[in-house]
Amino acid sequence: MKNKAVVLLSGGLDSATALAFAKSKNFDCCALTIDYGQRNKIEISHAKIIAEKMNAFRHKVISIDMRQIGGSALTDDIPVPKEREMDDSIPITYVPARNTIMLSLALGLAEVIGAHDIFIGVNAVDYSGYPDCRPEFIAAFEKTANLATRAGIEGSKFTIHTPLINLSKSEIIKLGTELDVDYSLTLSCYDPDEYGRACGKCDTCILRRQGFEQAGIPDPTEYA
Amino acid sequence: MKNKAVVLLSGGLDSATALAFAKSKNFDCCALTIDYGQRNKIEISHAKIIAEKMNAFRHKVISIDMRQIGGSALTDDIPVPKEREMDDSIPITYVPARNTIMLSLALGLAEVIGAHDIFIGVNAVDYSGYPDCRPEFIAAFEKTANLATRAGIEGSKFTIHTPLINLSKSEIIKLGTELDVDYSLTLSCYDPDEYGRACGKCDTCILRRQGFEQAGIPDPTEYA
Repeated sequence: MKNKAVVLLSGGLDSATALAFAKSKNFDCCALTIDYGQRNKIEISHAKIIAEKMNAFRHKVISIDMRQIGGSALTDDIPVPKEREMDDSIPITYVPARNTIMLSLALGLAEVIGAHDIFIGVNAVDYSGYPDCRPEFIAAFEKTANLATRAGIEGSKFTIHTPLINLSKSEIIKLGTELDVDYSLTLSCYDPDEYGRACGKCDTCILRRQGFEQAGIPDPTEYA
Repeated sequence: MKNKAVVLLSGGLDSATALAFAKSKNFDCCALTIDYGQRNKIEISHAKIIAEKMNAFRHKVISIDMRQIGGSALTDDIPVPKEREMDDSIPITYVPARNTIMLSLALGLAEVIGAHDIFIGVNAVDYSGYPDCRPEFIAAFEKTANLATRAGIEGSKFTIHTPLINLSKSEIIKLGTELDVDYSLTLSCYDPDEYGRACGKCDTCILRRQGFEQAGIPDPTEYA
């Protein structure tokens, strides 16, 4: 019998690649999407389709309205920045403690289904501004996870897998293409139009487009 | 100006004491109650009253239905154990990753309101069976919190305060009584009746009743 894993799946390019990677390592995957009240609810329907196409044995959606916390352009009524504005500072699209919250929920689910492996598609290269995408954060969370749970007490070991953490966007796209990810199913845009088409202008759209170019792989994204 | 703190407030005896303690240390307190789909919703209305009476500057309720995760007598349809059955094993009322999830949400809120201090009324004495009530778990979470956030990156420091962690129930009750906590407002019972009265029989009821006895303080709890 395969070992089970929980894979955080947003419906975007990175997390779909992380799911493909977990599958390639022979894990039986439970996909977990956090509905955190983001404005692009359409991402969740993408996640559902991806989970199904990639044979996750289950797709869980956990709702937690992070607007109750507030403090980010992704969940508040601050307009998402349209033009590229990447530098070393923390972007305003940062959601306070988001990865800590998402990993905590993944940990609870992992404990319930008997999984000791959690996959998250964080990336420290393109998103260096997000504190909770750094390897030292992941290491600290993994330690916390092992102290927080029955499994930890009983001698099992949780591993937080971050297969994309040191890859550039083009390397992620090359990896996913080798693993047969259908990127036309993924949505990265922070601000899609009413038909779910990417805006082509926000940070993630630009990173994604450049990633395909640099990888020399045709971009299947439908832009508005 | 006082420093702000986020205080996790369930509506029970321990968290009310933690709130009183934070106040006594001159923090301006934002109370945070997690509505995690527990069967005793009445706890939340107790939390609201306590937050108000104890002059929290805000009372936030964040809803996250942990039944979506499952795996515990407190959120599933497993009957809560009626008779005392405390030993060294992990109790079935343990909610997977609960404190990790609650602290993560508190961390997000703290970051938004500009607080660097989080209070949680965990206790390692009476609840030694819960892995996420141990000091080593709290220390690991604190480290994670500092790596997860803007504040951590920018050089501030989050502190997770656990003023009750090494106190017995009677010591907690003595402390709270010195700090003017009105324990008649608190509800500890896992299984109150339809009027919100404590059952007197579950683990927490027994611990609470014994605590008052051992402290030599009259028990204001209304039992069914």
